[in-house]
Amino acid sequence: MRILGIDPGYATVGFGLIEAVRGQVHMRTYGTITTPAGLPLSRRLYQLGTDMEELITQLKPSVISIEELFFNTNITTGIAVAHGRGVLLYAAEKCGVPLYEYTPSQVKLAVTGYGKAEKRQVMDMTRRLLKLESIPRPDDAADALGLALCHARSFTSRLPQAGTVRETI
Amino acid sequence: MRILGIDPGYATVGFGLIEAVRGQVHMRTYGTITTPAGLPLSRRLYQLGTDMEELITQLKPSVISIEELFFNTNITTGIAVAHGRGVLLYAAEKCGVPLYEYTPSQVKLAVTGYGKAEKRQVMDMTRRLLKLESIPRPDDAADALGLALCHARSFTSRLPQAGTVRETI
Repeated sequence: MRILGIDPGYATVGFGLIEAVRGQVHMRTYGTITTPAGLPLSRRLYQLGTDMEELITQLKPSVISIEELFFNTNITTGIAVAHGRGVLLYAAEKCGVPLYEYTPSQVKLAVTGYGKAEKRQVMDMTRRLLKLESIPRPDDAADALGLALCHARSFTSRLPQAGTVRETI
Repeated sequence: MRILGIDPGYATVGFGLIEAVRGQVHMRTYGTITTPAGLPLSRRLYQLGTDMEELITQLKPSVISIEELFFNTNITTGIAVAHGRGVLLYAAEKCGVPLYEYTPSQVKLAVTGYGKAEKRQVMDMTRRLLKLESIPRPDDAADALGLALCHARSFTSRLPQAGTVRETI
């Protein structure tokens, strides 16, 4: 199973492709799609949509794992990110790739076994699980690989027991 | 100038096409695009994007006038609306139609001459300016015609004097 993790946004979108075969996970590629800051939002969204479509066509994922949105901080940024996420969902649907959505807590739990883990711990476990020499950069790409791992580990029922899951999912 | 007004959303999107010729405005058509409640958000967004693209291709507007988003009420609904609006901007850009964005206050001011007018007053002035027998239904379509009118009246510098404008724009 080829899992494409996506960390949504409109200025920088992280992506990471892993392959999960018989309980083993392997990193295939990762990176970011960025849109120029000087352009109007509509132009950036259009570029984002076409770039994501091209990426999906090229990487041929079996599924996409994308982060759910929560806004407890900056609502203005949140609105712009939601615009970008809408276009990313549109692109995934256009390419006919099944979508799975995970909250940050679900990613933390699936990757580290603890739903309230620090961001750094998640990145380090992502590095270890994928047998990488260093934590992928930028953070958006590392987050995207974490999302892909989350799907791989949730999907193969390798989550911790229900008792621990209950409080965070 | 053919102006397509769009009242953004993801469940119901209002649209209204007017033609502005030598200071005169004429209503051409209006309606809504709706997406089925039972489908996943990604599927609804994809349908919304393709429907909007088809509508633009069919109506051939010279410009699109779309509402800006503000969230002082329900943030969860707001996030979903922003997803939809992202896809609508993407579709407009894909079709190469210039976009103009207006706040609710700008629409109120341009249509009624008063930036804090009631929603009903805006709808009634929309009806009168477009010489319609009754207020278009549903509200989303009436709002979209108001947005189109707002662009027509702003663009032809028929706004009230600067003194009245200053406090709301």
